[in-house]
Amino acid sequence: MVMIDFSDRKFMVDAIQLSMENIKKGGGPFAAVIVKDGKIIAAGANSVTNDNDPTAHAEVNAIRNACRALKTFDLSGCTIYTSCEPCPMCLGAIYWAHIGKVFYGNNKADARNIGFDDSFIYDEIDLPIHQRKVKFTQLMPEEAIKTFRIWDNMEDKVEY
Amino acid sequence: MVMIDFSDRKFMVDAIQLSMENIKKGGGPFAAVIVKDGKIIAAGANSVTNDNDPTAHAEVNAIRNACRALKTFDLSGCTIYTSCEPCPMCLGAIYWAHIGKVFYGNNKADARNIGFDDSFIYDEIDLPIHQRKVKFTQLMPEEAIKTFRIWDNMEDKVEY
Repeated sequence: MVMIDFSDRKFMVDAIQLSMENIKKGGGPFAAVIVKDGKIIAAGANSVTNDNDPTAHAEVNAIRNACRALKTFDLSGCTIYTSCEPCPMCLGAIYWAHIGKVFYGNNKADARNIGFDDSFIYDEIDLPIHQRKVKFTQLMPEEAIKTFRIWDNMEDKVEY
Repeated sequence: MVMIDFSDRKFMVDAIQLSMENIKKGGGPFAAVIVKDGKIIAAGANSVTNDNDPTAHAEVNAIRNACRALKTFDLSGCTIYTSCEPCPMCLGAIYWAHIGKVFYGNNKADARNIGFDDSFIYDEIDLPIHQRKVKFTQLMPEEAIKTFRIWDNMEDKVEY
């Protein structure tokens, strides 16, 4: 059970206000803020259509901005407040960034009701590769593995 | 069953060669190329550590570059050749970009064997929200939904 305090509500209001401002700018109805040590370090709003970038969801943009601000690829100790429950892409980004807590406003069903249906992606992830709508085919693994072997033997690599 | 032809092998070789070049530049051992109408329109290599961007996986970078090149957020009709099976974040990005086919070299198990374990994200996605390691909490849905209602009633919005 996560405790919710006044500052959590305040940060969520910030995210929701940003989502409202974003639709006035021609963006999608989504925004997020990232908080560390009680302070907002970055924000992001959906800019898929404005930036011609299908990966520019609110959470992804906020994570990229937070990493730029802190000069790191590791957001351990940070919390994200997002105006809508993350899609699988954003959930993956949250995990790779090591964000520990997520507060969200609208949920997946709310998003589906206004035409943003990411449930099909959740469904596809659960299907065996050969049953997915997008065709996945393994090719030349005996060549691809060579890069992995070299990486594995490198001594001065930056791991993450 | 997906037919594999000579050009598929050629594009995969390109992706694998890029992955090899990328580790020499200090990046992770991953790269991808995106093809439309038989031609490479963009490439991308993992730049998480070099760019301090946890979302900068090979596939995400390639999608961003392809969208920039074609000035669109919709990559329908494109195929991605990636040196490693996509993680959940990249799989989500591929679906949002409407890429229809994926060829991959190394698989998830190969990636885990050299220290890149995205299986924990796949596992977490399948868990109910309250059982995940990252804490997900819904907050102020009655406020968040207001932006969605305004979006839903807008007549001049760009849908995607």
